[in-house]
Amino acid sequence: MIKDTWINFVHDLQDRICTALEKADGKAVFIEDAWERAEGGGGKTRIIANGNAIEKGGVNTSIVFGDVTDAMRTQLKIDGAKWFACGLSLVIHPLNPFVPTVHANYRMFELYNEHDEVIDRWFGGGTDLTPYYLFEEDAKHFHQTYKNACDTFDISFYPKFKATCDNYFVNFHRNNERRGIGGIFYDYQRPDENKDVDFWINFAKRCGDSFIEAYLPIVEKRKNAPYTDKNKHWQEIRRGRYVEFNLVHDRGTLFGLKTNGRIESILMSLPPTVRFEYNYQPEKGSEEDKLLQACLHPIDWLNLVTEEEKAEWARKSNSC
Amino acid sequence: MIKDTWINFVHDLQDRICTALEKADGKAVFIEDAWERAEGGGGKTRIIANGNAIEKGGVNTSIVFGDVTDAMRTQLKIDGAKWFACGLSLVIHPLNPFVPTVHANYRMFELYNEHDEVIDRWFGGGTDLTPYYLFEEDAKHFHQTYKNACDTFDISFYPKFKATCDNYFVNFHRNNERRGIGGIFYDYQRPDENKDVDFWINFAKRCGDSFIEAYLPIVEKRKNAPYTDKNKHWQEIRRGRYVEFNLVHDRGTLFGLKTNGRIESILMSLPPTVRFEYNYQPEKGSEEDKLLQACLHPIDWLNLVTEEEKAEWARKSNSC
Repeated sequence: MIKDTWINFVHDLQDRICTALEKADGKAVFIEDAWERAEGGGGKTRIIANGNAIEKGGVNTSIVFGDVTDAMRTQLKIDGAKWFACGLSLVIHPLNPFVPTVHANYRMFELYNEHDEVIDRWFGGGTDLTPYYLFEEDAKHFHQTYKNACDTFDISFYPKFKATCDNYFVNFHRNNERRGIGGIFYDYQRPDENKDVDFWINFAKRCGDSFIEAYLPIVEKRKNAPYTDKNKHWQEIRRGRYVEFNLVHDRGTLFGLKTNGRIESILMSLPPTVRFEYNYQPEKGSEEDKLLQACLHPIDWLNLVTEEEKAEWARKSNSC
Repeated sequence: MIKDTWINFVHDLQDRICTALEKADGKAVFIEDAWERAEGGGGKTRIIANGNAIEKGGVNTSIVFGDVTDAMRTQLKIDGAKWFACGLSLVIHPLNPFVPTVHANYRMFELYNEHDEVIDRWFGGGTDLTPYYLFEEDAKHFHQTYKNACDTFDISFYPKFKATCDNYFVNFHRNNERRGIGGIFYDYQRPDENKDVDFWINFAKRCGDSFIEAYLPIVEKRKNAPYTDKNKHWQEIRRGRYVEFNLVHDRGTLFGLKTNGRIESILMSLPPTVRFEYNYQPEKGSEEDKLLQACLHPIDWLNLVTEEEKAEWARKSNSC
């Protein structure tokens, strides 16, 4: 029952987001690859490429389940007899370097004992932005949209989930440089007497709905902006950092690789064209450097938190 | 004393290889970045880029040491009080897709107890080839050169180290597809009464010397071959697999990240331009597919092993 509600939400969200993205692109359409997983379950991978606005992207859903394996026990610290996971995961890599890359993921995980009874259940999700050039108005619009979504449910959510996001998408091997300018991210949220299963499903729905409102206006505003080879070069350099984060640090990618996930669906997140140059450094004070600094030192875009909360963020940022 | 011998060898090899590569390139020269590591030691990173033949490459040496940390104990399974490592590591990414990428690494590791006594010492190394198109004569020449080097020391080495190489550079998440067509690789070789420290240093010297003989004639033969956009596209797709192996599976990269290594020197191995396309498959029977098949099913290039040894290789290949 809970599973069905969640599965229906995830598939409906996939449809709505694909429709909105195709409309914004105006040329490319999604191609669907439905796949099955030998150990149980499968998914619907939807890929778009070589569009007017989108160079490469995927909006995927999957419903996967199976026995808890030794690899999951030791490497993912999951304890139980069987597991179930269902979620939506999307990554959009735009062609124009002034349009940011976006990633979103909303998922539910269940764990069962040997009698198939649910012994644990948690929700996770979030949406985060990876620009190549920093437009303050875009960053504020994106964060404000998710703050509005969060505030309807719990006013503590936005500052907390914003900090979680800033502290998760981190290239720890690059002096704690963030992948982008964040958004919100929450994980291991277990229903309790105050916030039940419906609460978390409704929260994910609201966040899912907010994707179109948060991202599409930025695409519309920037997709036709003229750009130079230098701008494209910088985008490809930054895409390299995206690859580094996803392959070295991302828990979702690791989970996919350890659970014999469908590799092409997991790695659809990688950008279309990428550059790795030795010790590339943008010129101090340039537009490229401005973006880099925002990745090194996360910004409180909405300027709404107290000094106490800021100190807490700084502490968390330094501890990662 | 042993350390000095090894350090001198490594630096001399670095000089000789850089000279030979510059000569083959005919345009670009190596730039040296000397660096120090806060916890102890440092290195000489030499980078070459945008040459006639070499699009990006590095020939690095490093001498690093320090206390064994908790991360090393748990994640690298290293037990002792202090450690020392010195080695040469090189990766050359050619411009022309008909010239293969090459990687080599020769290193010595020492472990000490609290009284600074050596409690363990091992040698590791190897050289392997990652072509984008398969030329049987190149593959045979490359493997034959290392077989000749190995045979001078122990005729069991080439088949053993060839198999170790085939079973190490594997994208396990890609149906055990190899990064390339191998070469030799050995690790954790500890001196004993039969093969002492000098033996392993001399073996590394011979293998190091063989690099120029094994690789440079292939560069000379192919560097001016005409190629199409399609050839370059395929090279960039395959470079994506190189990135996947290095960031997801490579122990050397992991060691560097866990020991606070110099990140730009570690990641100099990444190719200059890379493409990731969803579910890209070369046409069956094409030249691109021929290369892919050789990566999926390692070839006994020198056709010198017995049926028994072949069965052993097949067993090892299937178990990874």
